[in-house]
Amino acid sequence: MRLIKSPRKISEELNKCRDKSIGFVPTMGALHKGHLSLVRQARKDNDFVVVSIFVNPAQFGPGEDFKKYPRPLKKDLALCRKEGVDYVFYPVPKDLYSRGHRTYVNVEGLSEVLCGKSRPGHFRGVVTIVAKLLNLIHPGKLYLGQKDAQQAVIIKRMVEDLNIPVTVRVMPIIREKDGLAMSSRNVYLNSRERKEAVVLSQALKLAGLLINNGARDTKRIMRRMRELIVRKKSARIDYIEIVDVVNLNPVKRIVNGCLIALAVRIGKTRLIDNLIIRDGS
Amino acid sequence: MRLIKSPRKISEELNKCRDKSIGFVPTMGALHKGHLSLVRQARKDNDFVVVSIFVNPAQFGPGEDFKKYPRPLKKDLALCRKEGVDYVFYPVPKDLYSRGHRTYVNVEGLSEVLCGKSRPGHFRGVVTIVAKLLNLIHPGKLYLGQKDAQQAVIIKRMVEDLNIPVTVRVMPIIREKDGLAMSSRNVYLNSRERKEAVVLSQALKLAGLLINNGARDTKRIMRRMRELIVRKKSARIDYIEIVDVVNLNPVKRIVNGCLIALAVRIGKTRLIDNLIIRDGS
Repeated sequence: MRLIKSPRKISEELNKCRDKSIGFVPTMGALHKGHLSLVRQARKDNDFVVVSIFVNPAQFGPGEDFKKYPRPLKKDLALCRKEGVDYVFYPVPKDLYSRGHRTYVNVEGLSEVLCGKSRPGHFRGVVTIVAKLLNLIHPGKLYLGQKDAQQAVIIKRMVEDLNIPVTVRVMPIIREKDGLAMSSRNVYLNSRERKEAVVLSQALKLAGLLINNGARDTKRIMRRMRELIVRKKSARIDYIEIVDVVNLNPVKRIVNGCLIALAVRIGKTRLIDNLIIRDGS
Repeated sequence: MRLIKSPRKISEELNKCRDKSIGFVPTMGALHKGHLSLVRQARKDNDFVVVSIFVNPAQFGPGEDFKKYPRPLKKDLALCRKEGVDYVFYPVPKDLYSRGHRTYVNVEGLSEVLCGKSRPGHFRGVVTIVAKLLNLIHPGKLYLGQKDAQQAVIIKRMVEDLNIPVTVRVMPIIREKDGLAMSSRNVYLNSRERKEAVVLSQALKLAGLLINNGARDTKRIMRRMRELIVRKKSARIDYIEIVDVVNLNPVKRIVNGCLIALAVRIGKTRLIDNLIIRDGS
């Protein structure tokens, strides 16, 4: 496994392997089984697997957890080695954002809804760093997690709109035994919060059950989810929404499938989760 | 010479030539000697030369000349053939901007000044289409004209900020005998306007002379330029500015070189021109 810090160098290195297929897993480190499921799929599909580890300042807002975001680099590298990763790219911010940096990529209309409402500028930061990484690494396949559903929708849109020659694969959410979606931010939870955090996935399960039993009116479904969540003392709902899987517009009545997404603060920790309903008819 | 309309096809074709060097000249057609100087340089530097001809709707404002912009395709193709171009890519808008298109690249801070003031959204459109074309064509070298000075500054910034692996070459302005900078929009001028249009380059020459003779105070230089231009009946000044060549900030006193840029309406036709002062000391 090669460790590369310099953007110029990773680009040069991978340019030598243009005859090989490259699978790319962009991460902010603090790797968990969710990330590893992406790495394993990349390992299956490609000659080379590149993992980037970069806590991207451009996607954090002023009051957010950029500084305290976990950075267990040694542990991350050990996990990558175990999974057979070929290249780990772990740049420092100043090498990716020069002093004069002024260019941002924005997926307009998809970036201001759902998580974008309480995190203005977040997706502009995400999309910009992904565009940069794709230009440095030029993978044939890009692996993303369904956990960050809005991010996946936005990046797929960006790749299509900017004619970036990469195939995007979105892999299923990996969960703890009790249903909590794996997240690097779960480490922030104390033991009481950890127990109550399961309510996100429970609310989604409830929604899935209601829909299975014929519910179609999203207002009613969201009310039932809300009622379940507010019973937990540490929970404060940021949003619960049922939207179209492609354009993220709110859906009133479930007809052709939808994305049920929510963000809930458990104590001070903001968690997200989601469920895709493939076909509501 | 191959003519290719489909984005998918140009990408596939050029992917077969990855061992060759590719020079790319993006244009909106209506080719003149300015464009041809870029093509010739690209011909000298590279194995393959790709010219794109695309009047990009995203860079025209509501009241602008998108519809009437000249589109002499046959003549353009003949010129490309004569210059030894290998591929002409001439897509139609709907193949580059799908119905759901929502992604834009923006070079913040550089796009709102100079021409950006009277053409809001213009550079967002320019930068987005260039990013798209670079992703489709993957040239080693990109050729731009100094005539569009702000565009060149912004595209160079974008290429660096987004880590796009391409070298940008900016070629000198090509002028008519009397000094008028070559532009596809010069065909809009009637014979009287055509004569008066020379005042843009005359004002720049005057500025150059003044600086050669020791003038450093930009306010004074710009006043002298203004006085010269307003003598022409058909001329209405959009802006005259003296700015830093990299960050486009206004310069009060010329010390380390600068960009003198102006936009003037001659009748209904908006023309631009500029002069780079390499070193003011």
